[in-house]
Amino acid sequence: MIIVREVAQLRQAVAERRQLGANGEKAEYGSATTQQHTVGFVPTMGYLHEGHASLMHKAREMADTVVLSIFVNPIQFGPNEDLDSYPRDEERDLEVARREGVDIVFLPTVAEMYPQPTRTKIRVSSLTDRLCGASRPGHFDGVTTVVAKLFNMVGPDLAFFGMKDAQQVAVLQQMVTDLNMNVTIVPCPIVREADGLALSSRNVYLSAEQREQALVLSHSLRKVREVSEDVVQNTLTILQLYQMVESTITSSPLADIDYIEILTFPGLEPLPPKQRLSDVEEDIIVALAVKFGNTRLIDNMRIQKAEVLSHV
Amino acid sequence: MIIVREVAQLRQAVAERRQLGANGEKAEYGSATTQQHTVGFVPTMGYLHEGHASLMHKAREMADTVVLSIFVNPIQFGPNEDLDSYPRDEERDLEVARREGVDIVFLPTVAEMYPQPTRTKIRVSSLTDRLCGASRPGHFDGVTTVVAKLFNMVGPDLAFFGMKDAQQVAVLQQMVTDLNMNVTIVPCPIVREADGLALSSRNVYLSAEQREQALVLSHSLRKVREVSEDVVQNTLTILQLYQMVESTITSSPLADIDYIEILTFPGLEPLPPKQRLSDVEEDIIVALAVKFGNTRLIDNMRIQKAEVLSHV
Repeated sequence: MIIVREVAQLRQAVAERRQLGANGEKAEYGSATTQQHTVGFVPTMGYLHEGHASLMHKAREMADTVVLSIFVNPIQFGPNEDLDSYPRDEERDLEVARREGVDIVFLPTVAEMYPQPTRTKIRVSSLTDRLCGASRPGHFDGVTTVVAKLFNMVGPDLAFFGMKDAQQVAVLQQMVTDLNMNVTIVPCPIVREADGLALSSRNVYLSAEQREQALVLSHSLRKVREVSEDVVQNTLTILQLYQMVESTITSSPLADIDYIEILTFPGLEPLPPKQRLSDVEEDIIVALAVKFGNTRLIDNMRIQKAEVLSHV
Repeated sequence: MIIVREVAQLRQAVAERRQLGANGEKAEYGSATTQQHTVGFVPTMGYLHEGHASLMHKAREMADTVVLSIFVNPIQFGPNEDLDSYPRDEERDLEVARREGVDIVFLPTVAEMYPQPTRTKIRVSSLTDRLCGASRPGHFDGVTTVVAKLFNMVGPDLAFFGMKDAQQVAVLQQMVTDLNMNVTIVPCPIVREADGLALSSRNVYLSAEQREQALVLSHSLRKVREVSEDVVQNTLTILQLYQMVESTITSSPLADIDYIEILTFPGLEPLPPKQRLSDVEEDIIVALAVKFGNTRLIDNMRIQKAEVLSHV
């Protein structure tokens, strides 16, 4: 496993891997074979958990070379957010990467990524109006900008993102499509603890009591899934679904609700409150953001309704 | 010369050229040779003149494959601008391209470039606050967005832009740097008619009388250059230089001044009015935008002051 901290080193390491054939051997007749060599990329903010590991695992299955980046990106954090306290453990992260068979790990410093403050931002409109885009102004511009930079540095064919950050997946897919980036976004399922809590680096902030009460998020979404799969219950309206989720969450005294939204996916558009779940023909997402103390947790459940699966 | 109108065809055509060695022959030992194959890209809005031809000529000198794009980009035109009347002549453009030895010409439709209205925009701040960025709100977002798309489609090593659009060069260089795009921007000198008028597709709009009076632009800039090269006169202040330019231009009754600005280049920052030209240590640009009737013409003169040439 190669560990690099500079962009020039990263480009070199990826280029050398691309010269290998799909089987890892140096290609004799380079042109055809090198074109077949696929690079899979997993961009993260580190403090890796099994959710990240599942992305690396998927990349390992689908690509010849797996690149992992670890970078806590300042420009996607708001002024009152947790940039300074964000958990970091490089040594443990490298162990996880090694275990998952990652080929190249890129760990740039802030100065390497932003030698000067950036004057360029990538803005995806419309999809960033609701959910975390509304609660965290400027956050997604920070995400799209850093991901575009990383894509330009790594030059991947495939890039893997967890559906825990469903809005992020939708936003990045829009950017890739709109800017004709030659990358395929591969969304991966949410990974959960045994009791249902969605894995997140920020779970480490929770006290024991907050950790217990945070289960209302996954419980409410489990109920949503059960309702959607039940031919009688799925005649519930969007509003009734919302109320069911809200009452489940508010059963926790510590839960401070930022948003509960029921939207189409990936278009992220609202649905008529009186529409029956069974009558909706697009994929739906039920998305939550709830604070426990200072820790903001998000979770979501995607309900597949469309006859044809959207790519994302 | 290959002519393509779809992105998929373009990617294929470029990929096939890249498989050739630098001498144009199919590479046996592909990997090393294909890495040396350089692609030079000239993005234009068509109605090609000798200015564009000089870009293609430079690309032909510097690169193994030359790609030309012709696309009148709707999202860089304001609502009261000349999108519908912008001059077009595909047949003549292809002749110019053929003459200049272009390998691939890309002529997409609006639908090919924007199958859906774009929700993603690339915004470069600061450099777009003045000059044409102030006069044409949203224009440079349209430019950076379409150029990023084209770069992602073509995948060039080098990209050629004329210094007639000096702010555009500075803005694109900022974008390429900030987003770690693996492209080198090559700025090329302004090409002028024999009497000094800077070549521009929009010159075709000018009546005979307007064409004659438009010469005040290049005349004023020629004076600027003479002053800067004269060890006595270059003790003029920035303000005096400005006044000299303004009085030259206002000698034309038809001239309707949008802006005259004297700024650093490529930082595009203003200079203290009382500073002597001889005391300035950075490169300077004197930039003009003047309307003759409905036609807005721009021109500029770059004065090299810095001991070390900036890349742009």
